[in-house]
Amino acid sequence: MELLQHYGNLLEGAIDEAIPNKQPSNLYQPLHYILSLGGKRLRPVLTLFAADIFGQASKEAVPAALAVELFHNFSLIHDDIMDDAPLRRGKQTVHEKWDVNTGILSGDALLILAYQLFENYDPELFRKLAGLFSKTAMEVCEGQQFDMDFETRNDVSIDQYLTMIRFKTAVLVGAALKMGAMIGGADEADQQRIYDFGVSLGVAFQLQDDYLDAFGNPETFGKQVGGDILANKKTYLYLKALELSGDEAAQELQGLFNGSGASDHEKISRVKALFEQAGATTAIKNAIAQYTSDAYGQLEGMEIEPNRREQLRMFGDWLMNRNV
Amino acid sequence: MELLQHYGNLLEGAIDEAIPNKQPSNLYQPLHYILSLGGKRLRPVLTLFAADIFGQASKEAVPAALAVELFHNFSLIHDDIMDDAPLRRGKQTVHEKWDVNTGILSGDALLILAYQLFENYDPELFRKLAGLFSKTAMEVCEGQQFDMDFETRNDVSIDQYLTMIRFKTAVLVGAALKMGAMIGGADEADQQRIYDFGVSLGVAFQLQDDYLDAFGNPETFGKQVGGDILANKKTYLYLKALELSGDEAAQELQGLFNGSGASDHEKISRVKALFEQAGATTAIKNAIAQYTSDAYGQLEGMEIEPNRREQLRMFGDWLMNRNV
Repeated sequence: MELLQHYGNLLEGAIDEAIPNKQPSNLYQPLHYILSLGGKRLRPVLTLFAADIFGQASKEAVPAALAVELFHNFSLIHDDIMDDAPLRRGKQTVHEKWDVNTGILSGDALLILAYQLFENYDPELFRKLAGLFSKTAMEVCEGQQFDMDFETRNDVSIDQYLTMIRFKTAVLVGAALKMGAMIGGADEADQQRIYDFGVSLGVAFQLQDDYLDAFGNPETFGKQVGGDILANKKTYLYLKALELSGDEAAQELQGLFNGSGASDHEKISRVKALFEQAGATTAIKNAIAQYTSDAYGQLEGMEIEPNRREQLRMFGDWLMNRNV
Repeated sequence: MELLQHYGNLLEGAIDEAIPNKQPSNLYQPLHYILSLGGKRLRPVLTLFAADIFGQASKEAVPAALAVELFHNFSLIHDDIMDDAPLRRGKQTVHEKWDVNTGILSGDALLILAYQLFENYDPELFRKLAGLFSKTAMEVCEGQQFDMDFETRNDVSIDQYLTMIRFKTAVLVGAALKMGAMIGGADEADQQRIYDFGVSLGVAFQLQDDYLDAFGNPETFGKQVGGDILANKKTYLYLKALELSGDEAAQELQGLFNGSGASDHEKISRVKALFEQAGATTAIKNAIAQYTSDAYGQLEGMEIEPNRREQLRMFGDWLMNRNV
């Protein structure tokens, strides 16, 4: 998307420069490494975009955008340890390339470096940005804890699942946009609207990820289709299917998730059939449409140029139309 | 010490209340637990004390004091994981009582909660306090990394060792005092003086800890005397003894640290004799006296009541006269 390219160009170089090149190198080198792995830079781009929308040069928003990106990478380093993940973006994770202690400590340093970036703003703005950042960071921690708790729980409700993905994924999207709006000088009502736009879109995106993981096109999805099913992940599709199924289908679904001896192929195919039969596939499509529509609804009230509103909507369309 | 008791009373209750009682409990319960293990509360007490010295009610400094204590406990949780330590203050460490993932994530949350406490101050003060906090926190991370690096290095200089203990231990003492001075309205020169007082005293204290670990009275020291020697820790005593020894004594010392087959008792006794012979014991006593004197020197220039200066000095004497 052209818009992302435009703002992304403002970030390149700045990301690596946000990390000191000094001793002890075992603390700082892992940070240069994780940030060099790339990624879409979606969150920091949204901060620059939002500042621009509300009339401030995007350059002013670069430190806050970097803070968002550093925080995101801090959470990746620590989450990868907790998930025992060997790879991140096709390369070794920090704790694999170095060790767990390095991952813990360099992650800590990255979180602190993120806070330091707000020192580029005057005291009033510093306080607002750091306050939103802390609130968001706590919610991301809570989301991660809920996610870990859910692995061993059999009584997770749809509402609890939605809270988990909102905290773990969506609030940072909302906060990235709101920080840009704060820097751009938006009033509080518009700050709230763009935050809600980001959070709703973030939830819609995560639900779409759940959907595509089961029903995406293997040619274009990028991850293994059925990966969540093989990992027995209690996604929206699974929880909704249990809720909507009769006793027999529910028992079969639970049996498949508790290890039925079915082959991978059989398991994926049977679980998907149960999702469909229960109406969970329809339900998730409706939920995605509802959250997307909620997000777009926030755009209506914003006091911004019509073409800006159109750009935000185009961004939403781009994000949600990964028909993979 | 009466002074500590007085300020400590202001903190009790407030520490536990600084941690939310909410879901997910697996995130918050470990934080209530680590903070319930007690400790001297030395750092937060210094923040309250410094605010009082410079004419502000200590109550105003409570949120900053709590931030310092929360940060300290954050670093304990993560350090205990890195050191694989089973016990903290005679009780199970967080990662032992729960697991490593819980230790990582609840530690992260504690660091963020510490930042949130500064939101109790107006924007100008918030910015100053959070800025000092971030700078200090980065140095503590660097100190911890240097400490881990030193375990496998054989070329650590005395200067590097002193930098390590300054970052890992002393700067937080200085920052705790300086935050109180900021809240109390001290001018920048006095803020710097009380910071330097705290840092010098912190280094003196850590060096004394090195000394007592080898030469303290087993009846009263509290830890196993000789523990650093058995763990082959490259303390000031060891590095200084290597520097001052002739080739033969240096080789014997290195041999003992590389595993000579000596019994624990023999090893401790022989290493201590080599420390003494090399003059390292005298050198560390001189260094302790010098850092203590540097600390007291900072008191002279401060624009505070003479009895306040006397109290700071008494605190220093109390801290350094653990003749154990």
